[in-house]
Amino acid sequence: MGADPLTTVEFRELLIGLIVVLLAAKLAGEVMERLGQTAVLGELLAGVVIGPGLLGLVREGEVLHALAELGVLILLFEVGLESDLSRLLKAGPQAILVAVVGVVVPFATGFALMHGLGHPGLVAVFVGATLTATSVGITARVLTDLGRLQDSAATVVLGAAVVDDILGLLTLAVVTGIAATGGVSLGGLAWLVGKSVAFLVIAVTIALRRAPVLVGLIDRLQARGALVVSSLVFALAAAAAAEWIGLAAIIGAFAAGLILSRTEIQAQVEDRIKPVADVLVPIFFVTVGMKVELSALNPFADNAQLGVVLALTVVAIASKLVAGLAVYHPGTRRWPVGVGMVPRGEVGLIFAGAGLAAAVVAPDLYSALVVVVMITTFVAPVWLKLLYRPAVATGVY
Amino acid sequence: MGADPLTTVEFRELLIGLIVVLLAAKLAGEVMERLGQTAVLGELLAGVVIGPGLLGLVREGEVLHALAELGVLILLFEVGLESDLSRLLKAGPQAILVAVVGVVVPFATGFALMHGLGHPGLVAVFVGATLTATSVGITARVLTDLGRLQDSAATVVLGAAVVDDILGLLTLAVVTGIAATGGVSLGGLAWLVGKSVAFLVIAVTIALRRAPVLVGLIDRLQARGALVVSSLVFALAAAAAAEWIGLAAIIGAFAAGLILSRTEIQAQVEDRIKPVADVLVPIFFVTVGMKVELSALNPFADNAQLGVVLALTVVAIASKLVAGLAVYHPGTRRWPVGVGMVPRGEVGLIFAGAGLAAAVVAPDLYSALVVVVMITTFVAPVWLKLLYRPAVATGVY
Repeated sequence: MGADPLTTVEFRELLIGLIVVLLAAKLAGEVMERLGQTAVLGELLAGVVIGPGLLGLVREGEVLHALAELGVLILLFEVGLESDLSRLLKAGPQAILVAVVGVVVPFATGFALMHGLGHPGLVAVFVGATLTATSVGITARVLTDLGRLQDSAATVVLGAAVVDDILGLLTLAVVTGIAATGGVSLGGLAWLVGKSVAFLVIAVTIALRRAPVLVGLIDRLQARGALVVSSLVFALAAAAAAEWIGLAAIIGAFAAGLILSRTEIQAQVEDRIKPVADVLVPIFFVTVGMKVELSALNPFADNAQLGVVLALTVVAIASKLVAGLAVYHPGTRRWPVGVGMVPRGEVGLIFAGAGLAAAVVAPDLYSALVVVVMITTFVAPVWLKLLYRPAVATGVY
Repeated sequence: MGADPLTTVEFRELLIGLIVVLLAAKLAGEVMERLGQTAVLGELLAGVVIGPGLLGLVREGEVLHALAELGVLILLFEVGLESDLSRLLKAGPQAILVAVVGVVVPFATGFALMHGLGHPGLVAVFVGATLTATSVGITARVLTDLGRLQDSAATVVLGAAVVDDILGLLTLAVVTGIAATGGVSLGGLAWLVGKSVAFLVIAVTIALRRAPVLVGLIDRLQARGALVVSSLVFALAAAAAAEWIGLAAIIGAFAAGLILSRTEIQAQVEDRIKPVADVLVPIFFVTVGMKVELSALNPFADNAQLGVVLALTVVAIASKLVAGLAVYHPGTRRWPVGVGMVPRGEVGLIFAGAGLAAAVVAPDLYSALVVVVMITTFVAPVWLKLLYRPAVATGVY
């Protein structure tokens, strides 16, 4: 048989893990929706409750982790598929401005805070970098749940989040470069910027031509399930390509969705990929919730980080709200843009994890950062929902 | 972060593995369909080609293995969902007779052959047990591809395969019990039979009442994706329950499908679960193909098993064809029933693997058994297709 297959016991553990994760996600999501909140908040809370921090019902093993990672790829593919490219391009300069403000201000204030608290420069740099992230996944999901993906503020936030991911990757590359070698080359930086821009320009160019070659290939397949499998393979291939040239895999998945968004098969692909997303995306959000370690919030614990957590949370939220002020389009609301930039989600966790791996960020501070990331992630959906409440009440939703 | 998460390198390997598996499955399936064969044959061959035996493009790691296992569960859930329970019950006694003949004859002839070749009694017992298996997965998939799931022969084969799985599990329990302790208790055997029968009787009873409680619960959920997730959770829970009481997980998944097959939500569940099946089921068949070690077929290799492979293959095919003779219904064709019982698939591999694990079956003989299982699995789809050819040619498909 193949290399390291699952044993019966491991497969049983996986089955039970999947049942608990999916059941908790659906029940908590259902409760949240009935309370007038978004389902994603319920999924995150479900993760906190069933995760090792509280009940410890489920352990995030290799398979669950892989399913969650595939889930976030499919989520971004769906977001790309549903996005209105011409509006995204029109919002381009606006989105770039919001993204730049949303990276510079959090970095500067996070750095200043940690430096002021007496931490070494490199630690302050990592904390600042963690605060620059924006989780396009969380915001996109909330806006989808609210039926607000076509809103002009949503367009700016999603555009800014994509730019932010690219800027975030550059920041991460620079910061880890400094941690490893004590410096970073200007040539390396230019190369990273160049290929990121090239990747997205190519994707947008193919999208504008409505991808005739790709659509022709997919259309010619006859076997059962050809549409869902071939579009999924395309999304995975784009993710792998992005990853291969040093970008985040989610950017590739988003680009793949964008490329198919204006084709004649868009509606069919969306209909067939939805059930796959319905199963995998909640796994991602539940596992994000599972990563919260509540003990760091206990002020009486030896490793109490409550003060740091509170100070960083204020900085994290306020500094991203500033990005909303960079909105200059008259028809676009500033608050939803600012709040939409707040959740750090998986991207923030990646930054904090890189700091821990580089032995720059201590475990206590890492836990504090994870909690800050989680709070920003919890706050944004509730806040966005409140901002859109009048529209919901008048039945626009 | 969680326990043993995937590294970036492992995730990249998984992405590329998934792309290769899905792409190879779809391309080979497409080629086979255009050649007038079933897609599943292409998926098995794709597995042989990309697997470690030939090109070695993909390694079956933990995640791919788990996805394949989930795939076979969803396949059996789909088969249950599409089955016509009243016809299955009417075919009951007929199916049981076919299954019993299809277990007794292969066991007896396999045992006799190995004993005649001078192998010890316990080895002969394991080989005989391996030949009793019937892969309901392969046959169900071929019949689905042919649009023949409603055929009376299909009903008998699928019913017989389910009974065969239960008999197979009993055989496996007995054989491994003998290998471990030198004997097996009559009480243990009665207990195994009792719970298997009880499980299926309970499932059929709920199905006949159209599962009002379950349907009411699922119907009341409002959040996006509630239908696909709740029916999937139900299938996984039934699989875990079957596994927990000592039955095969696939029997539980089949029972779950059966329970929903007569409900008012059947068509919706089928429509929403199909894309998930379209992605996961081919992964199962490709990984089955990947397990073939072609070197055992080389007559000049040190471990040449070609003679044993040929003799066992003849016995394996002929002994299952005999089961077709047990058909006494006048309207049911005997050949499709006999041929439908031939593929051993994953069940045969489980038996051979158990013999290897118990150190009763030597690695050479194990490789030979795997090849025999594979040949039976390759032969059946082609043969079934030929048997149904006239109907296909006249456009009934």
